[in-house]
Amino acid sequence: MVRMDQDLAFMLRYENVAWYEDGKVRILDRRIYPTRTEFVTCTTYKEVAQAITDMVTQSAGPYTAAGMGMALAAYEVRGQSREKQLAWLKQASYDISHARPTTANRYAIITEGCLAAAQAALDEDRDPVEAIVGRTIDSLNRRYSTMEKVGEYLAGLFPQGGTVLTQCFGETIIGMMLRAARRQNNPVKIVCAETRPYLQGARLTSSCCVEMGFDTTVITDNMVAYAMERKGIDLFTSAADTICRDGHIANKIGTFQIALLAKEFGIPYFVTGIPDGDKFSGKDIVIEERDPAQVLSYRGIPNTLPGVKAIYPSFDVTPPHLISGVVTDKGVFSPFDLERYFQTEVHQFY
Amino acid sequence: MVRMDQDLAFMLRYENVAWYEDGKVRILDRRIYPTRTEFVTCTTYKEVAQAITDMVTQSAGPYTAAGMGMALAAYEVRGQSREKQLAWLKQASYDISHARPTTANRYAIITEGCLAAAQAALDEDRDPVEAIVGRTIDSLNRRYSTMEKVGEYLAGLFPQGGTVLTQCFGETIIGMMLRAARRQNNPVKIVCAETRPYLQGARLTSSCCVEMGFDTTVITDNMVAYAMERKGIDLFTSAADTICRDGHIANKIGTFQIALLAKEFGIPYFVTGIPDGDKFSGKDIVIEERDPAQVLSYRGIPNTLPGVKAIYPSFDVTPPHLISGVVTDKGVFSPFDLERYFQTEVHQFY
Repeated sequence: MVRMDQDLAFMLRYENVAWYEDGKVRILDRRIYPTRTEFVTCTTYKEVAQAITDMVTQSAGPYTAAGMGMALAAYEVRGQSREKQLAWLKQASYDISHARPTTANRYAIITEGCLAAAQAALDEDRDPVEAIVGRTIDSLNRRYSTMEKVGEYLAGLFPQGGTVLTQCFGETIIGMMLRAARRQNNPVKIVCAETRPYLQGARLTSSCCVEMGFDTTVITDNMVAYAMERKGIDLFTSAADTICRDGHIANKIGTFQIALLAKEFGIPYFVTGIPDGDKFSGKDIVIEERDPAQVLSYRGIPNTLPGVKAIYPSFDVTPPHLISGVVTDKGVFSPFDLERYFQTEVHQFY
Repeated sequence: MVRMDQDLAFMLRYENVAWYEDGKVRILDRRIYPTRTEFVTCTTYKEVAQAITDMVTQSAGPYTAAGMGMALAAYEVRGQSREKQLAWLKQASYDISHARPTTANRYAIITEGCLAAAQAALDEDRDPVEAIVGRTIDSLNRRYSTMEKVGEYLAGLFPQGGTVLTQCFGETIIGMMLRAARRQNNPVKIVCAETRPYLQGARLTSSCCVEMGFDTTVITDNMVAYAMERKGIDLFTSAADTICRDGHIANKIGTFQIALLAKEFGIPYFVTGIPDGDKFSGKDIVIEERDPAQVLSYRGIPNTLPGVKAIYPSFDVTPPHLISGVVTDKGVFSPFDLERYFQTEVHQFY
């Protein structure tokens, strides 16, 4: 059943770690990786949706988890009538895609694709579970080959031996940009902002970079201006959870202020990813507000006294005038020129 | 012996918690406060110096700890010859004042004051330990009454019911500004940047604010631009570990980037404190680089894989063009006009 590009093993620990097998989906618990390597095991699709909500996996992880969750939903109603199976899968598609608001549109492309695959399988008397798993692996390989192109374009923007600042965990693009840099014989140095409160930069991005053999330095989120002023940052790059057609992007909280600081220090900021055709302007972005308790503690240890409040916006919005280029599978676009991206054929991505 | 302003009890937990008694100095361990309230007990002045280096106490805490450490040094050589006692205290003054480089000048004013007090006591056949403790309490009360004036001037700049963003832990000024705001019937709201890696904002500033009954919200350090754009920050304020005569200031890492963001959003930034007469320009600031291991872990739990590096500059430098005013005991000065501060009598502060 598995037809995955095995050459991309370096990313398996990060992305392909939401996997369906024998009526269960196992998801690597990124909330504690790499301190400990543990898995959350889901036996219902609702547990998969909850795991996405709880950020057991995040970044591109949910793209795989959403598909595998749909396979689990199909397993839950195996052998029932066609109508019952499809009604259940339709509900599952809704529940899983709405696990997080900012990226619900992207998750829906995946879950609705899985629903269609199940429907086709039922029509042809094939196993819907297997059809959905196959569709999910196809989607994964599609994203890998698309992001490989993005990685080549992005690495082409790196100065030779330069220092690249990252924010959050760009998932696939981190591996792809480093692989491309290595192919281009460019030993870039990576500086990862730690990205509180979840610490994606410290825990996930830096792990990926150091495992691939690159010089990797973590800074706390308040060291960005200092590093830009004194440590020779040449370029800032991040992925995005939304890329609107008008050039506004949503990404992990903190991206906006790093982009502002980059502009102040004359450092270019390149966003990577595939523009969202259904998001026309920054006003279409829904910012997820998460439980502020996660800001007030760390690994369950409270930092504050009772009565202290917090906010936890999961994302922020960066306007196009702070973005030097949007790096896509079709090359580098000005953020003010993204309509041109849609004027040539748009390949299925999710 | 104790002649301390007892009305200022709210600050005792934060500042007067390095205290000499019976041949020991007990220091509140701020590295874990308020999760746990524990003390480090020092039986030699070298342990006090090490505790300052290790940031068992920080901000204004070392101003008291340095004096009490000198008292402990005097206790260590009690009964010995005058020459031996003074030679020991001279070495102690050097060791304690050099516990951290950025504020060595301020610590030296205190330890040399203690040395002089001991010398005078020995000349007059008084107990040098008691003389040093008395000098340290005098210094504390002097700072309290000076910072009370600073707090009044600072609170006078707060818009009615406004929202004030803080960085790190301003120690005495936090209590003083809130007491002044309360006297002025101004229920300001406080937003504390958490200030990684030590989390002064989350652990210390927010504790002080919430205990004094103010509406208190913690944000992670990467939420500053978001909060400025969407949560109505009216004013940014911080203390400073150095205020140079040319208007450059050193404060906790992250202050510089918050000042840059404040300028971007049209939010004034007020620095509080007494200008350092012996620091003429930003070039005189020595930035302490601490053990980067503290960035790679949290409360002993590592966040990263082996091989990942980090930097940990304890402070950064903010240039005068980002500072709206330096709030002193003599009123609010333009950062470009600090020479005027020294043209009228400068009262002893440390």
